[in-house]
Amino acid sequence: LNTITPCAACKLLRRRCAQECPFAPYFSPHEPQKFAAVHKVFGASNVSKMLSEVPEAQRSDVANSLVYEANARIRDPVYGCTGTISALQQQAQSLQAEVNAMREQIMRYQVHENAVAAV
Amino acid sequence: LNTITPCAACKLLRRRCAQECPFAPYFSPHEPQKFAAVHKVFGASNVSKMLSEVPEAQRSDVANSLVYEANARIRDPVYGCTGTISALQQQAQSLQAEVNAMREQIMRYQVHENAVAAV
Repeated sequence: LNTITPCAACKLLRRRCAQECPFAPYFSPHEPQKFAAVHKVFGASNVSKMLSEVPEAQRSDVANSLVYEANARIRDPVYGCTGTISALQQQAQSLQAEVNAMREQIMRYQVHENAVAAV
Repeated sequence: LNTITPCAACKLLRRRCAQECPFAPYFSPHEPQKFAAVHKVFGASNVSKMLSEVPEAQRSDVANSLVYEANARIRDPVYGCTGTISALQQQAQSLQAEVNAMREQIMRYQVHENAVAAV
């Protein structure tokens, strides 16, 4: 008798959660929304394929990154993750511009300081 | 007789590219690698579903962002897009730290300048 609670994937897909279930280690029944998200965006068979394509030690990172991407796509059906990437690129760009401007300002102070010291 | 070249999706899926093909406007036969990527990562039916879920004017943005995400996942099967997001977050964080440090440095110069001016 299998007394183990089925994982979130097997619960959603209404199938028996076998010992060698590819989803069970990464999709706990206590967080059903995680599998629901990747199922909606990637499909169960793609998720299983992407998990199997990397060494076991990296599979939880695969699962987590797929959950993150899927949630981003559900939140923003047009841009998904790429919306976050664009926003971060703009933020980095504007911070870099600020750094450059401040660096110039500091250089002007230093030139002035050296000139004063030379008097 | 259909003399139109089938779109990249219909070519890959070996199906007739009908007038109302959901992929044709976004997956030109001249860039077959774009559909190949989204097909591998999301699956054709998920791509079609995600395109149909937004107004037509936004569908090319959906297609482009899915291509971007799929290519990121193919390049980095463990982290995909989320690897780019982590790297950008770290970059923004370190730039912000640099801005804060420079701001302090500039403030010290300004305090010093005011003190000199007051003499």
